[in-house]
Amino acid sequence: MSLIEPRVLKGFRDFLPQQEAARKHILALLEKTVTKFGFSPIDTPVLEYAEVLLGKGGGETDKQVFAFEDNGGRKVAMRFDLTVPFARFMAANSSKLPLPFKRYHFAKVYRGENPQRGRYREFVQCDFDCVGVDSASSDFEILLLMHQAFLNMGIDAFKIHIAHRGLFNRFLKNQGLSASNVEVLRAVDKLGKVGEDEVRKLLVAHSNEAAAEAILAFIGARGTTNFETLDLLEKLAGGPDSDSGRLRTLLTWAEELGIGARFHLDPSITRGLDYYTGVVYETFLDALPGIGSVCSGGRYNNLAALYTKEDLPGVGSSIGLDRLIAALDELGMLDELRLTARPGAELLILCLDESLLPRYHKTAQKLREQGISCEVYPGAKKLAAQFSYAEKAGISWALIAGADEVSRGVFQLKNLSARESRDNLELSQVIASLRP
Amino acid sequence: MSLIEPRVLKGFRDFLPQQEAARKHILALLEKTVTKFGFSPIDTPVLEYAEVLLGKGGGETDKQVFAFEDNGGRKVAMRFDLTVPFARFMAANSSKLPLPFKRYHFAKVYRGENPQRGRYREFVQCDFDCVGVDSASSDFEILLLMHQAFLNMGIDAFKIHIAHRGLFNRFLKNQGLSASNVEVLRAVDKLGKVGEDEVRKLLVAHSNEAAAEAILAFIGARGTTNFETLDLLEKLAGGPDSDSGRLRTLLTWAEELGIGARFHLDPSITRGLDYYTGVVYETFLDALPGIGSVCSGGRYNNLAALYTKEDLPGVGSSIGLDRLIAALDELGMLDELRLTARPGAELLILCLDESLLPRYHKTAQKLREQGISCEVYPGAKKLAAQFSYAEKAGISWALIAGADEVSRGVFQLKNLSARESRDNLELSQVIASLRP
Repeated sequence: MSLIEPRVLKGFRDFLPQQEAARKHILALLEKTVTKFGFSPIDTPVLEYAEVLLGKGGGETDKQVFAFEDNGGRKVAMRFDLTVPFARFMAANSSKLPLPFKRYHFAKVYRGENPQRGRYREFVQCDFDCVGVDSASSDFEILLLMHQAFLNMGIDAFKIHIAHRGLFNRFLKNQGLSASNVEVLRAVDKLGKVGEDEVRKLLVAHSNEAAAEAILAFIGARGTTNFETLDLLEKLAGGPDSDSGRLRTLLTWAEELGIGARFHLDPSITRGLDYYTGVVYETFLDALPGIGSVCSGGRYNNLAALYTKEDLPGVGSSIGLDRLIAALDELGMLDELRLTARPGAELLILCLDESLLPRYHKTAQKLREQGISCEVYPGAKKLAAQFSYAEKAGISWALIAGADEVSRGVFQLKNLSARESRDNLELSQVIASLRP
Repeated sequence: MSLIEPRVLKGFRDFLPQQEAARKHILALLEKTVTKFGFSPIDTPVLEYAEVLLGKGGGETDKQVFAFEDNGGRKVAMRFDLTVPFARFMAANSSKLPLPFKRYHFAKVYRGENPQRGRYREFVQCDFDCVGVDSASSDFEILLLMHQAFLNMGIDAFKIHIAHRGLFNRFLKNQGLSASNVEVLRAVDKLGKVGEDEVRKLLVAHSNEAAAEAILAFIGARGTTNFETLDLLEKLAGGPDSDSGRLRTLLTWAEELGIGARFHLDPSITRGLDYYTGVVYETFLDALPGIGSVCSGGRYNNLAALYTKEDLPGVGSSIGLDRLIAALDELGMLDELRLTARPGAELLILCLDESLLPRYHKTAQKLREQGISCEVYPGAKKLAAQFSYAEKAGISWALIAGADEVSRGVFQLKNLSARESRDNLELSQVIASLRP
């Protein structure tokens, strides 16, 4: 029989132990942070009705979405983000939930886009949102959480760029441009990628030269402080209002909590997605501006309007785990994380004699009870082969005992990286050596 | 615009915070156990080439599998277990891995089978396998791990039923029945569900009455101890050989580790799947035999034969998380677990005055630094509404401070379940009350 090639689909990946352990470690750090802020976990299906994920027009499938007909003739699709399923979830379950409801959801999503550097067809998103209330406090909590999440991951050179969609919309309206809102927002959203000249061309195409210049002046407005920038923007938008007031509140509170310097009022941040209505933000790493935003989000008026008449304003943010890991890798921080998150056992009990295996397993159980992860080499192969296994598996310690030592209840403990060993240790001494 | 019904597909489920937190808690307990045994995490894609998951004939899709053509015209399928992707993974990556390789993989799988009580189309499997070696030690380690996993989950009334496929195959061969192996194995596998009479009918249909009686005698053979049963089986199969020797070793070692009573030699255990070749086992809860096996597995000769010529013998086991959770629920153990794994914040800082919000957030940050999960109510609603939110969100403590108290740096701390409160506490006293 001819063999089947063990390949994976384009844009999909296997995760080997080191990579998977590092990914799990970062997820655990994020989870620890969001739970400290009182966010609760939920889960939703990977597969949903196409109509639910794509709207009524979902029959003609979007190229980016994995959609198909199931064996029961239902049109179904794999989720392409965690926001749309969350909206559906809230419409279905809001009566069973406290409001405001704060959820986190770290899970895989699927997009058929063309794979390129750092883009995959299966990837993990880490979303956290608070819905059911429109308040500065709720906006601030999400920003504070983002801030804390980066610190908890050991990243302290980052900035959160913040703006307000309402303020920008008012400015556009004053320019007589509200109709072309979405195109303008998407053009501005490209500023970081394509530069001012390209954005100018796009803006002219969607409006006129004068409007394009005005927009560029608005998104380029900068004072020497965030508050000066805000004064400029307020003036350009036609004076203060509740939107500029919300921004002022958030920036003031950030100062009061001593983290004002992390925030950068940046009117060029619009987020391309048209559901944002309030504050919007992106997070950039000082050392890697080119990698783009590693954590983005904003406030939306009405999360679940497609499914329910209930008003569900909310605010949330999303971390693309793959981009974040790529960033940590470029910053040289991944090796350190990998060390912390090293998969596999700490200690290998060598097998010198197969008749001793039950004794070895008993010893292993005792070590595990003391919190030490360990395994028994499963047969009496040559010691060289057993050491070579330990090295390849990244195991740091070996415990060695032949029949004589086992009968005396002692062990040789070998540190495999330092290549040092100590003889005639009792088990309590072995434990003390590993947990000094 | 008419609303879209926020429904999920048949056999798929939303997980609300309590359910999801309980699921995460059990997964964490399992993960802690497998890592103590030196197993490493891996991940593979949910979506794979249909050929890889279903074999060369995978074009005609199995009704149980979600398979479709993607936008690039590739025939793809969603994984229906974690064993087949693991085989593909090993064929693709074995050169980069230590051998023996011990991996765990806890992840979602998809089956289009008709949903019934306790069966879903999307569910989580928890697999752990050791590949690259055929040894009693490796078999024993998996059994020891299963044993420990149940203890760590707080379950101590369970039995692991064990048998050996090689021994049964030899017996069948002596009956001149090797050709109908698979049918016989599947018939015997149904014993627990349909009873002896139905199995007899099936066996007669696949062989003859004499053979059927002989098979029923074999799978019904019982001594007063496991070792007596083993003697009977050895005799029926034509004498001792390496297979019965392996069983004897495992049972002896279990006695030596003081856990012999957990194991029950049960020749009616065959596992329907034809890839098993060595020991096979299923785990039953004493109080819930009817729910079936909650952890099953066995030894296979050659994991990845479809994809590589490399020999990869292995042994592994799988826990169906949904069935296990259903079992814990029936045993009344889930509420306890839910308490331990309670989602959301421990403490709510009430909002008496919106101008105090930055102070409230600052206090929240200080509490989080002490490991206390907490949140700030996001606006100055009536206190009754804030308390009602706390109750619905399952928050046990409230921290209350108006302008006067904030200026004096003191708080009222209220235990919401005991309905007791203490006034004028400093933050250090608040922390001490929550972390006594």
